[in-house]
Amino acid sequence: MTLKALVASYLEPKYIARIRRAVPEIELIYRPDLIGAPRFQSDHTAPHERTPAQEAEWRDLLARADILFDFDHTHREDLPQLAPRLKWIQATSAGIGQFVKGYGYDRLGWIFTTSSGVHARPLAEFCLMAMLMFVKNYALMDQQKRSATWRRFHNSELRGKTVGIIGLGKIGRELAQVCKGFGMRVIGTRRDTSQTVEAVDKLYAPDQLAEVLPQVDFLALCTPHTPETDGLLDAHCIGLLRPTAVLINIARGAIVDQRAMTAALQAGKLAGAALDVTDPEPLPADDPLWRLPNVIISHHSASTADTENDKLTDLFIRNLRNYLAGAPLENQLDVEKLY
Amino acid sequence: MTLKALVASYLEPKYIARIRRAVPEIELIYRPDLIGAPRFQSDHTAPHERTPAQEAEWRDLLARADILFDFDHTHREDLPQLAPRLKWIQATSAGIGQFVKGYGYDRLGWIFTTSSGVHARPLAEFCLMAMLMFVKNYALMDQQKRSATWRRFHNSELRGKTVGIIGLGKIGRELAQVCKGFGMRVIGTRRDTSQTVEAVDKLYAPDQLAEVLPQVDFLALCTPHTPETDGLLDAHCIGLLRPTAVLINIARGAIVDQRAMTAALQAGKLAGAALDVTDPEPLPADDPLWRLPNVIISHHSASTADTENDKLTDLFIRNLRNYLAGAPLENQLDVEKLY
Repeated sequence: MTLKALVASYLEPKYIARIRRAVPEIELIYRPDLIGAPRFQSDHTAPHERTPAQEAEWRDLLARADILFDFDHTHREDLPQLAPRLKWIQATSAGIGQFVKGYGYDRLGWIFTTSSGVHARPLAEFCLMAMLMFVKNYALMDQQKRSATWRRFHNSELRGKTVGIIGLGKIGRELAQVCKGFGMRVIGTRRDTSQTVEAVDKLYAPDQLAEVLPQVDFLALCTPHTPETDGLLDAHCIGLLRPTAVLINIARGAIVDQRAMTAALQAGKLAGAALDVTDPEPLPADDPLWRLPNVIISHHSASTADTENDKLTDLFIRNLRNYLAGAPLENQLDVEKLY
Repeated sequence: MTLKALVASYLEPKYIARIRRAVPEIELIYRPDLIGAPRFQSDHTAPHERTPAQEAEWRDLLARADILFDFDHTHREDLPQLAPRLKWIQATSAGIGQFVKGYGYDRLGWIFTTSSGVHARPLAEFCLMAMLMFVKNYALMDQQKRSATWRRFHNSELRGKTVGIIGLGKIGRELAQVCKGFGMRVIGTRRDTSQTVEAVDKLYAPDQLAEVLPQVDFLALCTPHTPETDGLLDAHCIGLLRPTAVLINIARGAIVDQRAMTAALQAGKLAGAALDVTDPEPLPADDPLWRLPNVIISHHSASTADTENDKLTDLFIRNLRNYLAGAPLENQLDVEKLY
């Protein structure tokens, strides 16, 4: 019997055609009228309201689906009941562990494959943007521009600065390479310290974080959100950073004690922060982070590039072929470790 | 007779000590009380008022100087009269041709050595900051931050984008390498097209500029200011750029028709500009460029890094040794070509 894969968040028709050409053995069900229209390119969390007739159609499709492209955000709670045939979900995000656990999907025997790697390059580029903006003193350029004041000033070079990368998965390793290309010193933490990592000058175990923090000009959080990393960068750790250091969080907001970080930024004990993620999201309108001039906020969009769906499509095709061949899938989530 | 070198713009005492240790054969005259105090690190154009007694002292030093470290900005017009023994000026800037010509210094038989190379890395880093800010849509991040609005959006990747580098001297070549490290396509113009340039995918002659312009996502002006490059990027050339292109000028303001560029930016025919230099400088407070949200202005400070004087000191030491040995000096200005 033909396996049915249901597309549960938006992909452009050209990518649908590519999947169908590449894996004709799979019946790919694509009903853009029943899923949320993207608000921006590569939007995979667009809200959608269905008429009762549309909802009935959608439930019928879920009931027959063996595979989902992306989670169904319109049926988070009751997905297990509505999709009894479901075996595998190909996610469009890398950090899905807490989500999978939060809805109890980890106890169903389903396979989850993440988008790990798809967002590594845009995120590494975002980190470099932030580092360069701080090292070049963009805040001063902008302040002088807003007051139409031409005044010379000095800045610095990224070359020779030290970046500490917490978590050397695909994103962290990509970042390490880009930083090394700028002539930076790269240090970082990783569970497995038995092997060297390309472009990383010195590797530390996670429990050596306190040795890493005082050394860095930039601290980049690239770790998955797991019980071990929840609240990892607490007030004590933030206090170990130099007052000239800049914190970059492209992981998850809950990894940082946001209150302590905000206080350090306000008190000049931390020079700046570039936050793709916050806790909670959306960041409430009255949060003091919005008003700090030394903070860059990227609205959980640093990973959302116009190149994303192209890469997701290719990943899905490779995994569909793996699935049909009974081969191991790329990026399979470990439901114990949550990454 | 011992050669006398007069320090005419500020260097930190540690660098003075380094020069004296390295080249004890030269009498290095250092009177920080008689030159402008730096307003920021690596400031070489600080104004200075001298008492009559101080001015007399300074003139006495000029009268005995064989070598100047930097131009004397307190005596631009009458330097030839005040410094009759002068043979060589080691500048602290790379783009000195028009200045030398403007004050008629080119007709005196003096040697000029530029700081070419010293600023290449900070300027290349500034260009990358600007490219990343545009490709990541920083303007939107910032606009949403100012209104405390969390809203997701898509951006793009630098990888795969095309940069056109006009002028492949030390700065242009440094920029080419950094861009290539990001996986960009690099094209550019250079007088000598007989040899390939590292990290440049395709090389064009200066008269092929019209072929370069329609191809680029980013155009970086890295050429010296000479009669040939004055007004080089005129209204016609600006019209050949894609409306999605971004112009980066780290050369000199006069290389661009600023009025035409401003009109293109206002009309959406040019997506953005990052301007380290303008025409004139300082940019007048009522210039419309200050108020355009798609313009980054860096106040002719992108090259001014806290690493500058360290590099200038080493260059001056190498050239003092060359001078004593009768060897060719590094970065000697061609007073005909003006670079």
